[in-house]
Amino acid sequence: MPDLAALTALGLRWDAYGQAGLTGPLLRLADDLDHAFQQLAAQWQAVEERPPATLPASALTGHLRAFPHQATFAIGLEPTDTNLGEFADGPVVGPAGSVVLTRTGPVTTVLTPAACFHVYAQRRGTQLTEAAYVTTRTTCFRREQHYEPLRRQWNFSMREIVCLGTSDETTSFLAEARAQTDDFARRIGLPLAWAPATDPFFRPHRQPGFLLQRVQPVKHEAMYGSLALASANRHHDHFGSTFDINRAGVPVSTACVAFGLERWLYAVVDRHGTDPGAWPEIALPAEVVTA
Amino acid sequence: MPDLAALTALGLRWDAYGQAGLTGPLLRLADDLDHAFQQLAAQWQAVEERPPATLPASALTGHLRAFPHQATFAIGLEPTDTNLGEFADGPVVGPAGSVVLTRTGPVTTVLTPAACFHVYAQRRGTQLTEAAYVTTRTTCFRREQHYEPLRRQWNFSMREIVCLGTSDETTSFLAEARAQTDDFARRIGLPLAWAPATDPFFRPHRQPGFLLQRVQPVKHEAMYGSLALASANRHHDHFGSTFDINRAGVPVSTACVAFGLERWLYAVVDRHGTDPGAWPEIALPAEVVTA
Repeated sequence: MPDLAALTALGLRWDAYGQAGLTGPLLRLADDLDHAFQQLAAQWQAVEERPPATLPASALTGHLRAFPHQATFAIGLEPTDTNLGEFADGPVVGPAGSVVLTRTGPVTTVLTPAACFHVYAQRRGTQLTEAAYVTTRTTCFRREQHYEPLRRQWNFSMREIVCLGTSDETTSFLAEARAQTDDFARRIGLPLAWAPATDPFFRPHRQPGFLLQRVQPVKHEAMYGSLALASANRHHDHFGSTFDINRAGVPVSTACVAFGLERWLYAVVDRHGTDPGAWPEIALPAEVVTA
Repeated sequence: MPDLAALTALGLRWDAYGQAGLTGPLLRLADDLDHAFQQLAAQWQAVEERPPATLPASALTGHLRAFPHQATFAIGLEPTDTNLGEFADGPVVGPAGSVVLTRTGPVTTVLTPAACFHVYAQRRGTQLTEAAYVTTRTTCFRREQHYEPLRRQWNFSMREIVCLGTSDETTSFLAEARAQTDDFARRIGLPLAWAPATDPFFRPHRQPGFLLQRVQPVKHEAMYGSLALASANRHHDHFGSTFDINRAGVPVSTACVAFGLERWLYAVVDRHGTDPGAWPEIALPAEVVTA
């Protein structure tokens, strides 16, 4: 289990607020891993989309009600000269490091909680004629009670592959994506085991979503020991309905597989040690990519 | 001048809050441009650093006082069950799309206003023994009164090359970086002209920083028509002193060149048209990179 000093020597720049900067060997490893996940996504000819940093709060009402403890919002000062002047003439930052805010403007956006939300929001009100596969990577924000370098962060990099299709198409996609994830993990020497999981709902027993996840195994996580490196999620027509994305007159089904990049960094170092020369080749061989 | 429809056809996903998502030809062009800037950075063997999303407010007191109108802060709900329950049981989002916040926690972090701030914050209290060159890219947030796709955004991608050294070293770096930027722009057919500039201070005539910028040409912008595609900035020992970064017993001087990636996208389309087949080769030829 690599400690903070060992990870720092490999290029981790851990931050007091639960975020990671990267340089050196860990940065190269992160880029190699993301490239390998893009190679996996290419099996479905998934289209790459780079989303903006935030989502409109109005598109996430249900999510915010279910996960209010995890949300990070973007906020600015009310942009009147008087208000800005009061701010600038004040202490700006107080003794405990907190900003001494004056009046703030309305909060209309949420820092991205999950990469795939952009894929659905982007397609609001559209009609699909065939299955769509999309891959995307973004910085995701989730507040937690405590943070651990690379294992549990306030914000982290999430790579996702998303399928929007029929129920059968999403079922096939998930089965194949799980098998491909297993193959890749085996290739780089990481033992993974899939297990059913539930999302960390606020007041879980009052949440219909949590009850559904308990009854139906809609979420599975790829566990490296106690650490989930990836998740495979079946949303049925939840996002198709919420975002009015239809095909042949009915809401599409969606599914996604999500990779938490920093956790893969942790797993590689934990498994293969702190000498980057001993780390496995990450890129997929050409015969796998074109299979 | 490409309009929003033309840019959308090329892969721009413009957002009501002043942000850009990218896919298709514009995403590939953005990656190619960033790679070319990394090739420029390699002329100084600049080390790549990928910073976290936010900076501690306590490290930016002076900046926040000078640019309070541009700041975006990260904020969360006060994480008590009672408060989260009040939020979740409330409307969550009001009719105008604004979040109906209950009590919020302290604001301690600022969404990155400029990529190079991380480079200095990362080196706080350190001693350098020779010039250091760093390159970094991050999403930067700056509120404006209005936004225009790719030209003026709430948040955007900034690639920087930073020199921390003696006054002479930063002078040589800036001269060389400006010449390299000119060469690159000429190679891809973009006419650029450098012009002295000032930062958009709040209440400029009361800001020592603004007065300094008027007296001494510390900031120059590479203008494509009326659009600044890059800036070259001499900070003297401002950041060396602020962040206690020293060399041979005195605060280091710093300088940076910054590229606004979305603006380069705009300039390429404006200059070369909406057919990606007519866009220039972006990658630098090997003989330039190894020069």
